[in-house]
Amino acid sequence: MSYTIDTTIAGIGMDEAERRVRAALEDAGFGVLTQIDVKATMKAKLGADIAGYRILGACNPTMAHRAIEMEPRVGAMLPCNVILREVAGGVEVSAIDPVASMQAIDNDALKEVAEEVRGMLGMVVATLEG
Amino acid sequence: MSYTIDTTIAGIGMDEAERRVRAALEDAGFGVLTQIDVKATMKAKLGADIAGYRILGACNPTMAHRAIEMEPRVGAMLPCNVILREVAGGVEVSAIDPVASMQAIDNDALKEVAEEVRGMLGMVVATLEG
Repeated sequence: MSYTIDTTIAGIGMDEAERRVRAALEDAGFGVLTQIDVKATMKAKLGADIAGYRILGACNPTMAHRAIEMEPRVGAMLPCNVILREVAGGVEVSAIDPVASMQAIDNDALKEVAEEVRGMLGMVVATLEG
Repeated sequence: MSYTIDTTIAGIGMDEAERRVRAALEDAGFGVLTQIDVKATMKAKLGADIAGYRILGACNPTMAHRAIEMEPRVGAMLPCNVILREVAGGVEVSAIDPVASMQAIDNDALKEVAEEVRGMLGMVVATLEG
């Protein structure tokens, strides 16, 4: 099964893509709580050269609070990551599908929350298209 | 199935627990790339009071590089989180089991890497016991 919700934004670079992703997340009620520049980390730690790669950790506080109330350790799978990858012709944006990442958690109520968040992240990705 | 590897450190508070977790991760080759104070975030964003709850995002650069080479979008599930929760009598530490969180990814080579990282995180948690 697919574990991410993807789109490719053509003709832009990483900085502009990140600006658009952050704006779309904010409009949908997600704050960006963490950020990792994977390319810079790989270069600094290993001397390895990879294409542009960033991880933004997005959190909708209301949904996260509901999830933690019903599944205290769910924070091990939070926040919901949105990754940006430099690809030929543009930037690929992939949001985690929380239903996929949380499928090892046996909790039907949590699954409903995860499905709701999947829908919200799907809308975010859709706003980035065309 | 269980999706975390857990232990409880008795008789200490969150700050001391975080210090020990960070030291144990560093000894095992994991850097802490992200941190979220969930309790503070819930208070600030929702006015909600919850017990102490922190998320540390741990990354072993060599293992992460191998994983990304074989599964480019795996960053949607990185870094590996270690959560600290204030519980009666101490602090519960739970490391994500990457085999569980990545079970939606159909990639046998990645699964081997995830199993190796699970072993490393299991050792980290074990060093915190007793």
